[in-house]
Amino acid sequence: MPDSPNDNNNHQGNNLRVRRIALDTHDQPVIITHRNSPVCRSEGFAAHARVRLAHRDHSVIATLYQLESDLLDEHEAALSEAAWNRLEVNEGDLIHISHPQPLDSLGWVRGRVFGRRFEHGDLHAIIRDIAAGRYADIHLAMLLTAMATKDLDDDELISLTEAMIDAGERLQWDRPVIADKHCVGGLPGNRTTPLVVAIVTACGIWMPKTSSRAITSPAGTADTMETLAPVDLDLAAMRRVVEREGGCVAWGGAVRLSPVDDMLIRVARVMDLDAEAQLVASVMSKKIAAGSSHLVLDLPIGPTAKVRSEEAGRHLARRLEIVAGAFDLDTRILLTDGRQPVGHGIGPALEAEDILAVLDNSSRQPLDLRSRAIALAAELLELVGAAEPGAGKQMATETLDSGRAAAKFRAICEAQGGMRQPPQAGRTHVVTATRSGSVKAIDNRRLGRIAKLAGAPAARAAGVRLHVHLDEAVEVGQPIYTIHAETAGELNYAREYSGSNGDIIVLDEIGEQC
Amino acid sequence: MPDSPNDNNNHQGNNLRVRRIALDTHDQPVIITHRNSPVCRSEGFAAHARVRLAHRDHSVIATLYQLESDLLDEHEAALSEAAWNRLEVNEGDLIHISHPQPLDSLGWVRGRVFGRRFEHGDLHAIIRDIAAGRYADIHLAMLLTAMATKDLDDDELISLTEAMIDAGERLQWDRPVIADKHCVGGLPGNRTTPLVVAIVTACGIWMPKTSSRAITSPAGTADTMETLAPVDLDLAAMRRVVEREGGCVAWGGAVRLSPVDDMLIRVARVMDLDAEAQLVASVMSKKIAAGSSHLVLDLPIGPTAKVRSEEAGRHLARRLEIVAGAFDLDTRILLTDGRQPVGHGIGPALEAEDILAVLDNSSRQPLDLRSRAIALAAELLELVGAAEPGAGKQMATETLDSGRAAAKFRAICEAQGGMRQPPQAGRTHVVTATRSGSVKAIDNRRLGRIAKLAGAPAARAAGVRLHVHLDEAVEVGQPIYTIHAETAGELNYAREYSGSNGDIIVLDEIGEQC
Repeated sequence: MPDSPNDNNNHQGNNLRVRRIALDTHDQPVIITHRNSPVCRSEGFAAHARVRLAHRDHSVIATLYQLESDLLDEHEAALSEAAWNRLEVNEGDLIHISHPQPLDSLGWVRGRVFGRRFEHGDLHAIIRDIAAGRYADIHLAMLLTAMATKDLDDDELISLTEAMIDAGERLQWDRPVIADKHCVGGLPGNRTTPLVVAIVTACGIWMPKTSSRAITSPAGTADTMETLAPVDLDLAAMRRVVEREGGCVAWGGAVRLSPVDDMLIRVARVMDLDAEAQLVASVMSKKIAAGSSHLVLDLPIGPTAKVRSEEAGRHLARRLEIVAGAFDLDTRILLTDGRQPVGHGIGPALEAEDILAVLDNSSRQPLDLRSRAIALAAELLELVGAAEPGAGKQMATETLDSGRAAAKFRAICEAQGGMRQPPQAGRTHVVTATRSGSVKAIDNRRLGRIAKLAGAPAARAAGVRLHVHLDEAVEVGQPIYTIHAETAGELNYAREYSGSNGDIIVLDEIGEQC
Repeated sequence: MPDSPNDNNNHQGNNLRVRRIALDTHDQPVIITHRNSPVCRSEGFAAHARVRLAHRDHSVIATLYQLESDLLDEHEAALSEAAWNRLEVNEGDLIHISHPQPLDSLGWVRGRVFGRRFEHGDLHAIIRDIAAGRYADIHLAMLLTAMATKDLDDDELISLTEAMIDAGERLQWDRPVIADKHCVGGLPGNRTTPLVVAIVTACGIWMPKTSSRAITSPAGTADTMETLAPVDLDLAAMRRVVEREGGCVAWGGAVRLSPVDDMLIRVARVMDLDAEAQLVASVMSKKIAAGSSHLVLDLPIGPTAKVRSEEAGRHLARRLEIVAGAFDLDTRILLTDGRQPVGHGIGPALEAEDILAVLDNSSRQPLDLRSRAIALAAELLELVGAAEPGAGKQMATETLDSGRAAAKFRAICEAQGGMRQPPQAGRTHVVTATRSGSVKAIDNRRLGRIAKLAGAPAARAAGVRLHVHLDEAVEVGQPIYTIHAETAGELNYAREYSGSNGDIIVLDEIGEQC
């Protein structure tokens, strides 16, 4: 959404010649100029200023840094890749630098910090400004914190969802029934989505699934799926895959269904903060923008899951249902057991191996993952009317056991650009039980933390493989989990944390259980 | 507060050779490496990672950017000046890069976002981590927003103040009576501090004043004073000035009385947010760390001042008094008229000219500034016992009119490093009345905004000179204020805002007033 050229002072001569240094700042737009740049001096731009950059009909708001070195001359500027790509410049192009417009919508954010509620148009203005790149990370952190501290009411939540839909692409499909599922994270290894897509699609129901990358967890579905097939599909590619196979598992960010959401997620990740309103609007805006008609939501509940109690689960479910109702999305929400990780693997590649084992009905398959996938697929098949009430489970089980789901999954991977093998970690460390006993509790959060310290999700092969589950008997010296890492530094870092957190897997004396 | 070497994995070979490019990122520590840096690859560091840099016994947490260019080779790193100075490195030195410790204290911040209160040690841990440079801007924004959204209770507020005192230097003086004053901002041009210091010090009372730079206003006292004399005094320099002259007006940040406060202020400025708790802790921690025994606080109240109503003023006064009481600081708080700017000038140099005019008893002196300075000095002289109750005003007036205050002020400026003339702006634009009438209201905030758009406080000569005050009669075409700027870009920017905000100075029909 470029600004019109009349938005700003359009002083002659405010131009800089860009040089590409391939500066990776994640997705933060940054411009570096020489301290003596005449343009910056005449405009009064100092380091850390927010400036507007424009090239032809593209513009972006960037943070200005300045240097004093012969790396750049006084009429040159280096750009971060985020700014470079957004402006669509080439080496040596001239860009125009100017003061950005005052960020009026920040007044609504500030108002909410001090207790006012958002009126209908406020969130639309805020989200539009975020989409246009006008908010600095500090502003995004302020918005997210304000929304987490005083939760949005129902009207605000519906407005936020609508604003996020409006800021992105919106898909339309030629079929009346478009199935979708989502898990409200927090449960390591709970990677049912690729299995549900395979089963439901094999039953003839269209399921064009967009998934997210990890926010604060060691892997998102998109991260895991990416170890099996490309997920960075644009709209046209996604449509081709779905028209051919009836389904896909693509990264939502590449489809730009909700580009603002990805910017919020990046900042939320640094804060390690999941706000309920952001979560609800994030989930629902993507489902609605994806053109879904029927949705099954998995809400795992456990003391160390994202949702910690039945009461909190029912509260969140009510919020999700209110938004679903406002947008006519037929939704069923399942509160599920979230007391321990699902499957063996935690981390992109390790979870992908579990998925393949279930599809192939291998003897090493994690049965908990299998049964959860069947339950969700069954619910969805009944919700869309493909199965009679009560008959969904049998239909899902047969689709899986017959190998039809596996064949469909492989076909989808091929359509997405080619199936591949998940990578293997070069370094592992086995953690063993320091005494015998029965597994009484497993701390999902700290186990997830080990996987993250080991490098997940950025390091695809990194993570944790869990060897025990709740109520299992364990002998002293028996492996309880294995840390996988791609580098020695990360393995050490995860080992250190593991070593000083011996109570992640809590053992009861077996005798005490009698 | 450097980490101990045992805090982290100390892998051999995690070294990079630093190159100075004088990269100014304001005070944000940044490191730039080559994308193919073997150290970063082996440790799994990707762009935007937070990394720990160490050199000898100094360390800092920095944000990592990566580039792909021949500007740096794979074993080199460029540092921002903030990181360079903190590590005390020289060109070609080796620095050690590693994973930072997990930021445990962020858990307390997150807890407060979700409604828990800070226990006593929490804020100390948070402030220690901020002082050690472990918090990213996003984390600081999260903390400030959480404190603004749900205000700290009295115990939390006292803890925060104490934690901020503990994180910085603390001054001690050989005299039992150390006078201090402070204005809780929001009123453009209300630059009484240099005048009060001159009067009180001329009466023989020690007043070693530390002042702040602007947070969200067009000038702080330190910004204004800097146009008259150096204010970046370190502790030793400040002590020398005070022992010679009995008083000073120094920048608090250079004395490092509350280094964390300055970091919070930088982020609060980007958010354009003043949180009550941050404000109270900021003010009181600096007064207590400065070794003050007696304090007079000026709280201007008006519809467009920082404090908008008597009720809000009394609430804030109560909070300030609670903290003052907890630290045995003898405090008197004055609620004053904040309906319009004080004096003629808004912006560092323009306010300095008003100060000189009052000291010199010039015919151009703003009488409102003079009478406010006399009132505050009188209150302080009575509070410390230098004047009998009721006799302070006469003592202050005589000290000013006799020229003793002016002589003392010049002596203080000389002791601080030499008195100088405030700079003059190269460009001005006169705004005139579009009709005749009587001045009914003046919008402090938008007038301050014009001064900021014109470049204040970074551009010292920039700002607004106000030609009218409340209840004055104005003829059509008469100048009502003049915008001063150092650059054409800034002047244009301020003019545009001024042009589309014709109601900053509201005129009544004169006839209507009869």
